[in-house]
Amino acid sequence: MDSGWIVEEQPFHPEHLKAYEGLFTLGSGYMHIRGSLEEHLSGAAQNMTYTRMPANVTSEKFLQTECEWGTYVPGVFGRHPLLSNEMVNLPFFLGIAPIVDGERLDLKTCSIEDYSRQLNLRTATLTRTFTWRTGAGKRIDMEFARFIDAAHPHLCIQRMRLTPDADLDLSVRAGIDADVRTNGYDHFTGVQLSLAGRVGIDCVVRTDAGDTMGALTRLVAEADWRYESTARTAELVTDVLLPAGRTFVLEKRTAVTTSRDLEAVEAEHLLTDTSVRGYDELHAEHMAVWEHRWRGCDVEIDGDDASQRAMRVSLFHLLRAHVGGDCRVAIDAKGYSGEAYWGRYFWDTEMFLLPFFLYTEPARARTLVDFRVQSLAGCRRNAAKYGYPGARYGWESDAEGDECCPNWQYADHEVHVTADVVYGLTHYARATGDEDYLRGPGAEVLVETARYWLARLDQREGDDYLSLLGVMGPDEYTPISSNNAFTNAMVGVALFLASCYGRFGGATVEECEAFAAAADALPEPRSEDGTLVLQCEEFEALAEPRFEELWKDRSRSFAAQVSQERLYRSKCLKQADVLMLMMLFPDNYTAQEVRTAWDYYLPYTTHDSSLSAGVHAIVAARLGLKDEAWRFWQMGRGIDLDVERGGAAEGIHIANAGAMWQMAVFGFAGMQTAMGTQVAISPLTLSPRMPDQWSRLAFPVVWKGVPVHVEITRKAVGVLNRGTGPLVVRVGDRDRKVEAGEQVTWETPT
Amino acid sequence: MDSGWIVEEQPFHPEHLKAYEGLFTLGSGYMHIRGSLEEHLSGAAQNMTYTRMPANVTSEKFLQTECEWGTYVPGVFGRHPLLSNEMVNLPFFLGIAPIVDGERLDLKTCSIEDYSRQLNLRTATLTRTFTWRTGAGKRIDMEFARFIDAAHPHLCIQRMRLTPDADLDLSVRAGIDADVRTNGYDHFTGVQLSLAGRVGIDCVVRTDAGDTMGALTRLVAEADWRYESTARTAELVTDVLLPAGRTFVLEKRTAVTTSRDLEAVEAEHLLTDTSVRGYDELHAEHMAVWEHRWRGCDVEIDGDDASQRAMRVSLFHLLRAHVGGDCRVAIDAKGYSGEAYWGRYFWDTEMFLLPFFLYTEPARARTLVDFRVQSLAGCRRNAAKYGYPGARYGWESDAEGDECCPNWQYADHEVHVTADVVYGLTHYARATGDEDYLRGPGAEVLVETARYWLARLDQREGDDYLSLLGVMGPDEYTPISSNNAFTNAMVGVALFLASCYGRFGGATVEECEAFAAAADALPEPRSEDGTLVLQCEEFEALAEPRFEELWKDRSRSFAAQVSQERLYRSKCLKQADVLMLMMLFPDNYTAQEVRTAWDYYLPYTTHDSSLSAGVHAIVAARLGLKDEAWRFWQMGRGIDLDVERGGAAEGIHIANAGAMWQMAVFGFAGMQTAMGTQVAISPLTLSPRMPDQWSRLAFPVVWKGVPVHVEITRKAVGVLNRGTGPLVVRVGDRDRKVEAGEQVTWETPT
Repeated sequence: MDSGWIVEEQPFHPEHLKAYEGLFTLGSGYMHIRGSLEEHLSGAAQNMTYTRMPANVTSEKFLQTECEWGTYVPGVFGRHPLLSNEMVNLPFFLGIAPIVDGERLDLKTCSIEDYSRQLNLRTATLTRTFTWRTGAGKRIDMEFARFIDAAHPHLCIQRMRLTPDADLDLSVRAGIDADVRTNGYDHFTGVQLSLAGRVGIDCVVRTDAGDTMGALTRLVAEADWRYESTARTAELVTDVLLPAGRTFVLEKRTAVTTSRDLEAVEAEHLLTDTSVRGYDELHAEHMAVWEHRWRGCDVEIDGDDASQRAMRVSLFHLLRAHVGGDCRVAIDAKGYSGEAYWGRYFWDTEMFLLPFFLYTEPARARTLVDFRVQSLAGCRRNAAKYGYPGARYGWESDAEGDECCPNWQYADHEVHVTADVVYGLTHYARATGDEDYLRGPGAEVLVETARYWLARLDQREGDDYLSLLGVMGPDEYTPISSNNAFTNAMVGVALFLASCYGRFGGATVEECEAFAAAADALPEPRSEDGTLVLQCEEFEALAEPRFEELWKDRSRSFAAQVSQERLYRSKCLKQADVLMLMMLFPDNYTAQEVRTAWDYYLPYTTHDSSLSAGVHAIVAARLGLKDEAWRFWQMGRGIDLDVERGGAAEGIHIANAGAMWQMAVFGFAGMQTAMGTQVAISPLTLSPRMPDQWSRLAFPVVWKGVPVHVEITRKAVGVLNRGTGPLVVRVGDRDRKVEAGEQVTWETPT
Repeated sequence: MDSGWIVEEQPFHPEHLKAYEGLFTLGSGYMHIRGSLEEHLSGAAQNMTYTRMPANVTSEKFLQTECEWGTYVPGVFGRHPLLSNEMVNLPFFLGIAPIVDGERLDLKTCSIEDYSRQLNLRTATLTRTFTWRTGAGKRIDMEFARFIDAAHPHLCIQRMRLTPDADLDLSVRAGIDADVRTNGYDHFTGVQLSLAGRVGIDCVVRTDAGDTMGALTRLVAEADWRYESTARTAELVTDVLLPAGRTFVLEKRTAVTTSRDLEAVEAEHLLTDTSVRGYDELHAEHMAVWEHRWRGCDVEIDGDDASQRAMRVSLFHLLRAHVGGDCRVAIDAKGYSGEAYWGRYFWDTEMFLLPFFLYTEPARARTLVDFRVQSLAGCRRNAAKYGYPGARYGWESDAEGDECCPNWQYADHEVHVTADVVYGLTHYARATGDEDYLRGPGAEVLVETARYWLARLDQREGDDYLSLLGVMGPDEYTPISSNNAFTNAMVGVALFLASCYGRFGGATVEECEAFAAAADALPEPRSEDGTLVLQCEEFEALAEPRFEELWKDRSRSFAAQVSQERLYRSKCLKQADVLMLMMLFPDNYTAQEVRTAWDYYLPYTTHDSSLSAGVHAIVAARLGLKDEAWRFWQMGRGIDLDVERGGAAEGIHIANAGAMWQMAVFGFAGMQTAMGTQVAISPLTLSPRMPDQWSRLAFPVVWKGVPVHVEITRKAVGVLNRGTGPLVVRVGDRDRKVEAGEQVTWETPT
């Protein structure tokens, strides 16, 4: 079996369960379920009520639990009295618990052998096999499998097989548990549970925001079931005499619907319609969808199994997390696999996630940018709340676009997201060639955000330029600064674009002129000798961070070891800031300028943020710093996979998943983005700088509507044009035309 | 009657009730009760549970209620899950409600004539008289009176007199209501109510911090009473047939005790012991105590009744709020008359309250500085929590010294309080001549806070001086700044003092040298030409505040009309910052420097803080800006008295009360403080600059142990030495020796 497609948990360690729950999250876009154990783990209550306080998530200590259920339908937000709107954790319907001779299966207390749990990335299927030696000395071969049906996104299909070596008194309990919390809070104002038919459970919950979610479960097994319930849980229970050597098979199929669904799906009909198809038939349909998805984006890495697997883990979650054609939602900061970031939408969408979709499946990229367009009303409310005209995107947006960030330093000051959104819209238009998007749906966003910026800018006494003051840049450890280079540049771009397309979005000629003038009047702070781009005006006047003395344990974040107050007055960086800017706009900086910034900022950078590794790897690759690029690639590779350090316990770092793709494609293959150059019409450009550890890097991309396949080895760079017209491609500095259906090969530049 | 002693509410307006409740707060130091109506107001529930969020109190909108009960015993703190420890609002025991022919007295719905409620400041007695015309057309003369017994500080004495012009079916309900909340939160884990004797109610509550409070009420009246109770309320009820012209008199006496009491007081005994004395006898004892207090501090202002009354309102609340000899508590930011600041202790103690006590009743000043000494353990915990050695005073301290501020920008960055405390200790030592205090109890505070400062200071690369970075100064609208002039100066003083007295507090010689070196190495930021003391390094690079455009309604704070984010990036000042520094250390600045600062900062200052007016009045007086001094005096005068604008609704602005005294004594009489000069041994110095509106200003002060009486008129300044030894006094620039018992007169300087 191709190990590059399999992620395995083996053996079982309870302390790693939460990390695997996050890592093994399955999803159909419509719904997502963390990789929790069917039979659950003893003692790990899921109904604890507690108050999660507004805090810096990076250094937050999460409630210690051994596992955490998570059932998410994107768009179902509840009202939290303290933390604002958050994605609701819905009822857990995976439960299947076998009890043998009175002994309930429990990985913590039972004797378990040959344990293996595998996520097959290719087929998006989670399987688990092990042998259970019961207290009575019986040996039972167990097998669990499940998938969320990509062909029927409302459907979750599970199967358990149980084969004993001796006659068994077997009981099985299969149910739905609605006694769950979201970040310790109970969002359900109503829970209804009932027997559905003779082998089903119907569960309907109503959230405090007025949404309803229904989960209808049906069991398929040769058994008689009885119904048992409490106020918030319901189970079907059977007792079977299972002879030695016979296999007990249980299938559990659950259809999920909510009051927010785009199309009316009737769970009853869905289950009945699909009931004629067996598990294998449904699984085959499901796999076919995933096979198609992988064809459009798989990045092949030869010579390095660990990187290949990590790459595919990232791609798997990117594919899973995208909600399909529903532009009322985007992809939250944990890719719908944990509640740490409340299921909200950050700048991650535009800067870390969008590029992957843009260059592999532009239609899905369109959904993400449409999300920003459709949530403009919420952004107008945000601007008004702060006393500004126009629109202001929330640092943490819910589905309506309303600012939900409960920490004022981010909500008030990390304003760059509003410009990042415009960057994203424009990236979409440039990468797809669909410039009409900026004249059509995007134009109002450009105008409304530019109106906000005009009011937000200050001209200080004595200055002959404008300033953006009181700003937090991507480095969140300098909370309130003046003329942050990244933010100024992004706002400058946004204002320039508004001046170009503003007339299509309702701006007057005078307004467009004002946008253009403001774009030109925003400074880039530099050191006195001009060689160093300063993160912000104040950066050089901050304290030295004294890492040697204060950052004792480098395996944990710096922020976890010093007070926030020290972070805020010191030169320590949470993540790339100036380097991020230089990564986005490589044409604006000389190699020397980038190198100067690299040498200056890197020693100050803690990489406390998972957004840091990818940017640094790409910049390092461009600078020819092979060892550094490799080091940051490895750092990114481990963020979700390093279960020892928590990994994806609180959810997948989905922005880093996007960054993994960017490191491979923008970094090691050296592909220029459609925004990376000032020339709007540019060829597909590749400057490969493959790690020494790899022998081959191959991937498909779509460049302005033309699908191509790129194949890089030590010796050659091949580009196959899978489109219907010719395409100019530049490798190194050699432009060549690649005809439709043709594969052209370059010598790999050195 | 001398109107300078009476504050009157007349007529009754429900919308002003809350302001008068705060203004009419009575207290014995041991306990404090807001000026609520005995019979309560219909529809104004006092048991509403709600979540008060951490916010900027200055611009916070408080829950709209028509009245707010408040019963406070200093030191009784509860645990709030979100806001940290807060003073607990205890059961309301003032309740007396007459019901006539089925009509319950209610100022909102009944027909009321000739209403007058008066706080007699001299006797600390609250009385209320009015005529109640009942629906049945009867006319009833009503009179309520109450005082918290200064001679028996655990005792509250009330009396109601009711005289009808026709026969009445009268019912009276008198009880205790423990169904109360503190900032919307229920701090009681237990409430016990019972009948005590035949005419008493015993109420015991237990708080979530484990304290208990007991209120034992006894009624005195010619009536039979029956007991009625619910889980949290209890009442004694009587029904009386009252003939026309006869007066029904009810006395209600309540003794309060808590588990925190310094001495064991038995409520039962206290009530029994005092029961032999009638209302008038107890009242006389009470008045005698207050007469004595007033003799030690009354500031007489001739020619301006409004100022005279306002001055005495401030003095009254200062006298009331002081807890006497209990150094386990100080005076909270609302002087125990409201919950807006959670009953916590701020820098207000040292900078605004201490001077009044220092120069009128040094023994009470000693309690306040002892409070800081005894809470040092909590301050060590604070420092450790932030990763520092030594001790760090909390921006909002509870009785244990623990930081309770729920808003990180203040808790983390407004560090000057730790130096202010040292200033206060030293002010005590200098003003009283008790320098041993710094070698004894205060020494450890000096050393431990200096250790904190050493670790808190940074030396930036390239600087040959130290810096205090990431600091919020008194102006809280610049939240994170570098080398705030006020803070640097205060820290410099604190470090210098630690270098002088450190050996007595356990510091090594090397440490003391390090304290001295650090004190010398802290810069005072100045404008490029050196003429302007800058609030902080960044001040000139902030945005213009654009008041004309953004501050539309000058009757409301600027902060209520713009976003916090704009405050934080703009030059707007919440209150005096550099000017406060110059007020404290007049010898360090030339008149020209003060004037330059005045001209620069005043146009930027919003005075959103009630701490601003006093400082500005004093600086203006010194600068000879008579109109400005008068304007700020008037501003300060109105802060609690302007009921139309809310006044003391959320509690007395007790720091401003202290500032009122300082304006009169330091500003208009021009008395130099013992800290205001670099010479430790200095004469009592007066430089009168009396407002044109006044003809005479007279007050007692104690200067280094010598009580004197100062009398200023247009023509002469008289100083009467009431001590036992001679005293050198300087008026203008003329020093003269004043012998014990002698009055010496100077011509008033012009």
